[in-house]
Amino acid sequence: MASSPFDWIDEQARLRERAGLVRKLRPRPAESGLLDLAGNDYLGLARHPEVTDGAAAAARRWGAGATGSRLVSGSTELHAELERELAAFCGFEAALVLSSGYAANLAAVTALAPHGSLIVSDAGNHASLIDGCRLARGTTQVVPHTDPDAVRKALGTHDGPAVVVTDSVFSVDGDAAPLRQLAAACRESGAGLVVDDAHGLGVLGAGGRGAPHAAGLAGADDLVVTVTLSKSLGSQGGAVLGPAKVIDHLVNAARTLIFDTGLAPAAAGAALAALRVLRREPERAARVRAVASGLHELLTGEGLSAVRPDAAVVSVRAPSPDAAVRWAADCRGAGLAVGCFRPPSVPDGVSRLRLTACADLSDVQIAEAVRVISRTAP
Amino acid sequence: MASSPFDWIDEQARLRERAGLVRKLRPRPAESGLLDLAGNDYLGLARHPEVTDGAAAAARRWGAGATGSRLVSGSTELHAELERELAAFCGFEAALVLSSGYAANLAAVTALAPHGSLIVSDAGNHASLIDGCRLARGTTQVVPHTDPDAVRKALGTHDGPAVVVTDSVFSVDGDAAPLRQLAAACRESGAGLVVDDAHGLGVLGAGGRGAPHAAGLAGADDLVVTVTLSKSLGSQGGAVLGPAKVIDHLVNAARTLIFDTGLAPAAAGAALAALRVLRREPERAARVRAVASGLHELLTGEGLSAVRPDAAVVSVRAPSPDAAVRWAADCRGAGLAVGCFRPPSVPDGVSRLRLTACADLSDVQIAEAVRVISRTAP
Repeated sequence: MASSPFDWIDEQARLRERAGLVRKLRPRPAESGLLDLAGNDYLGLARHPEVTDGAAAAARRWGAGATGSRLVSGSTELHAELERELAAFCGFEAALVLSSGYAANLAAVTALAPHGSLIVSDAGNHASLIDGCRLARGTTQVVPHTDPDAVRKALGTHDGPAVVVTDSVFSVDGDAAPLRQLAAACRESGAGLVVDDAHGLGVLGAGGRGAPHAAGLAGADDLVVTVTLSKSLGSQGGAVLGPAKVIDHLVNAARTLIFDTGLAPAAAGAALAALRVLRREPERAARVRAVASGLHELLTGEGLSAVRPDAAVVSVRAPSPDAAVRWAADCRGAGLAVGCFRPPSVPDGVSRLRLTACADLSDVQIAEAVRVISRTAP
Repeated sequence: MASSPFDWIDEQARLRERAGLVRKLRPRPAESGLLDLAGNDYLGLARHPEVTDGAAAAARRWGAGATGSRLVSGSTELHAELERELAAFCGFEAALVLSSGYAANLAAVTALAPHGSLIVSDAGNHASLIDGCRLARGTTQVVPHTDPDAVRKALGTHDGPAVVVTDSVFSVDGDAAPLRQLAAACRESGAGLVVDDAHGLGVLGAGGRGAPHAAGLAGADDLVVTVTLSKSLGSQGGAVLGPAKVIDHLVNAARTLIFDTGLAPAAAGAALAALRVLRREPERAARVRAVASGLHELLTGEGLSAVRPDAAVVSVRAPSPDAAVRWAADCRGAGLAVGCFRPPSVPDGVSRLRLTACADLSDVQIAEAVRVISRTAP
């Protein structure tokens, strides 16, 4: 076979194969029949009829796509309505909707960390925050995981604009950031705080208003929050929440807002419908937390090493990448879908099953899931 | 008023105000009544009933969101079907769908430019390609706009993996890259070619198969193409097209694929429906090119400085940012929506009206648009 300029990837593929780290897409049917502890549809809203109707109605009324950048033809009154309701629900002055949570994180971090500024970033932050730090003109200092003293120390080294960047709930282990202490450290030195509440919205705070709301920080003029519309709200997209002047700044400065097509109306319509269901049924947030706690309690009762969940993610350690893959496959064989996180997607190199609680799960389903996981454990 | 850590943005806001460069979102109603030469819905498919039905049916069947990363729960058989049909239509072995064209460009460039590699990037490239270069581990060399000799020279300076990165049609002026010559330069030195065909798909090539297809390059083993689903296909999302082994590599290495929620089913369903309309009605591609040529001819006939369009974008120069904003506002007042590009979104600092052709425009509408633009010209 003739050589191609991409032949260097063959060697990487061989190394992955040897290490048991090959990833493949596994397209699922519409009705898999599996019990789902893998997806991030925490509140069971992705297939809620009001939410799918919201998507369908928006596509019919506004078109299948936004047709352009939010700054040209891609802002509809539907986007504005979603932004108003989302900001009000979470307790912020203004919101800006982007095409993904990834894009929202790139927007917030890059626009708020200009040349000469300092970014203090938690070592366990999501890839999109890390990429935001790498794209920003400011200098990034990575600090140990959930360590407010390290944050305070890092901020003490710098004069001029600074932001502290953190997930509210970390995706891999489901543990929470010490938001109140981080906010205090920021205030001592006049730094801003940027919190990715992707796993907090819909789960934490009164009626699912999110981790910053639970910490009494919502609406603060030194806080900017990003959320995703693709987890608790069952749709797609992301948003930045904060003071109106910060949102205006993002409209002018954030490349993933300016140079990306606006979120599809169907996704905006679905997220808006989901938000309204959540407002009407705030008990969904409490239920998903109870499901996660229940899972954790039963799993540790079976002798498994699970991290106590601060939100909806329950992480269970596996002895190796191979064992984790086999474990997840055995669960699937027994009718249970679970996530399987392995290097390089885990900052500490530890492979695990990643279970996600859903407000819709019954106690019988929780018990069945735990039975399968413990029976198939390596 | 107490100071906030974000007060430094006030000064930037004042400078923008003074320079006439303030951007604001202008949410539009569902039916604006304006003649639209601003959006990128080149084939008029965003509101085509088969396309909006495709979105609605997909939301109902698959849910409002993908519920997780493509690698966990976010790959449906609908995504796989779209990937197969898109790859086949454009003439490539495989495709990978992401949540936006922006994400597709970050994926392709970062995954194909490892540490020690060289990226040769056209000075006029889209922001998302530029951000891909900045995130990639390889070293970037920016070369003058559409200059194959400069590309050849840059490639000559490097040993080891290299990629040349270019838009097929540049967003601001609507001019085309010399793809055949770039491919020849790449082949001389064994470099790969990455082409962003966002503005080519649906417009250029036989039946809208895109600029690489038109250049006889589709399916080459040294070529990777990115496309968007949000312009000609009237939806949202992006895709990478290329050899199957490159797509497999992206599944394992591209952070915007691994760490982002999969594209919403409604967007995948709409894009698939649009692709089928385009396959059935290939004349749409020829029509949009004819509309763009017609616009250009009439505008230059009126003495305006318009760039000869290579695809669907027609750029008309304005004397200053202020004049461009006023011109666009006057067009809007006369019932015509046009894009207005100003610094810092234009690489050369020249403000312009940006007109986009749509296959649905009638000759009467084209004449009316030109009448408004020339009557309101500064």
